[in-house]
Amino acid sequence: MYRIGQGIDFHQMVEGREFWLGGVLIPHTKGALGHSDADVLLHAICDAMLGALSLGDIGKHFPDTDQSFKNIDSKILLERCFTLIAERGYCVVNVDSTILLQAPKIMKYADDMRETIAKILHITTDDISIKATTTEQMSFIGREEGIVATANLLLRKVG
Amino acid sequence: MYRIGQGIDFHQMVEGREFWLGGVLIPHTKGALGHSDADVLLHAICDAMLGALSLGDIGKHFPDTDQSFKNIDSKILLERCFTLIAERGYCVVNVDSTILLQAPKIMKYADDMRETIAKILHITTDDISIKATTTEQMSFIGREEGIVATANLLLRKVG
Amino acid sequence: MYRIGQGIDFHQMVEGREFWLGGVLIPHTKGALGHSDADVLLHAICDAMLGALSLGDIGKHFPDTDQSFKNIDSKILLERCFTLIAERGYCVVNVDSTILLQAPKIMKYADDMRETIAKILHITTDDISIKATTTEQMSFIGREEGIVATANLLLRKVG
Ligand SMILES: [Zn+2]
Ligand SMILES: [Zn+2]
Ligand SMILES: [Zn+2]
Repeated sequence: MYRIGQGIDFHQMVEGREFWLGGVLIPHTKGALGHSDADVLLHAICDAMLGALSLGDIGKHFPDTDQSFKNIDSKILLERCFTLIAERGYCVVNVDSTILLQAPKIMKYADDMRETIAKILHITTDDISIKATTTEQMSFIGREEGIVATANLLLRKVG
Repeated sequence: MYRIGQGIDFHQMVEGREFWLGGVLIPHTKGALGHSDADVLLHAICDAMLGALSLGDIGKHFPDTDQSFKNIDSKILLERCFTLIAERGYCVVNVDSTILLQAPKIMKYADDMRETIAKILHITTDDISIKATTTEQMSFIGREEGIVATANLLLRKVG
Repeated sequence: MYRIGQGIDFHQMVEGREFWLGGVLIPHTKGALGHSDADVLLHAICDAMLGALSLGDIGKHFPDTDQSFKNIDSKILLERCFTLIAERGYCVVNVDSTILLQAPKIMKYADDMRETIAKILHITTDDISIKATTTEQMSFIGREEGIVATANLLLRKVG
């Protein structure tokens, strides 16, 4: 009746890009580099949803060689993942996630992100958790060269 | 009835600090650097408990700008997290965790850690798993500059 | 009735080694370095199975100081982990995993891996998910010096 999913995503942080995170535009001097809007949190959640039902990964469903996904809003990808699990009779019980980044401080945007994601997944914000941590200056994350998000979730068969 | 939580925590390893891990003092030439006792495993478990119920993260509940948390024993933080989930009618089903570090060997302390944590979470040691792995000399962990812990857990609504 | 497990494993990638992944031999210029066949995905799944029932970790059950595990096929280790959980009355509900590597492209081998793993765990391929991501050239993974796999799973008490 229950199934577990996990996702992890990596993007470089570079100047001259908008910084989309959890479906929200964050004011910052850098943004995540990628074919789509490079929203590392939404990508991790997409992968966790796909993974929970063994449907492949985000690279299979939304290949970065496909021009139709160029600069695409990742909320559209999340909606498609929601449809894929809903069609199979599953709903999301809860999502827990962590964003690994050195800067900027993003927790003031967390409630906006939670509302955005909850709406797409047809659950309440109480069922979406977004946490953040630095890596204490260590690694490419600590040097602000990149960002990582990890998401875990539980699905439940409906009815 | 079930909910999933995940936590990940990073600390630098430096000389001149006590090395607290899983609530236990480990003899070593270095210790983890941080505002509290910098217990990377207890912090990961705290975050997983908070995340499972979407209560924010350890930085929100125990900010490192708050002097009352300076050098605090992280077992006190774990107790507070337990209270937060117990108040909401949840208990911990099981915790599985991994400590990523190059040295020292810590598995001989694992049973002490499990007893310490199980007592605080009101479960048996059978429901607390602590694993460890090196990163095969790679990354800041392999260079013994830092330590990482990751924890996943399942909560269950009581009654 | 349900329990959660997680595993993460790291290996260096070096020339002159076969590259075993998910129980399948992958054509590549490098392979993972280790005492056994160094199958990072099977090791992560083993650790997740052991961790879900708090049975210790792969280093405890299959120590790399034991000559009987030298170059051993990790499918044998996975079988032993299956026996350990089956003896305790548990089955695997589903496994979700991610392989972090820069090269080569491995998703064309994913179905072979899923079949191999599903057979050992006595479940269907629908209950085994294998995903892959690069780290966007960052870290030891991006430099093709190493490979990481992470696995999460749900166990269920039978009967
Ligand atoms: Zn991405
Ligand atoms: Zn910490
Ligand atoms: Zn290994």
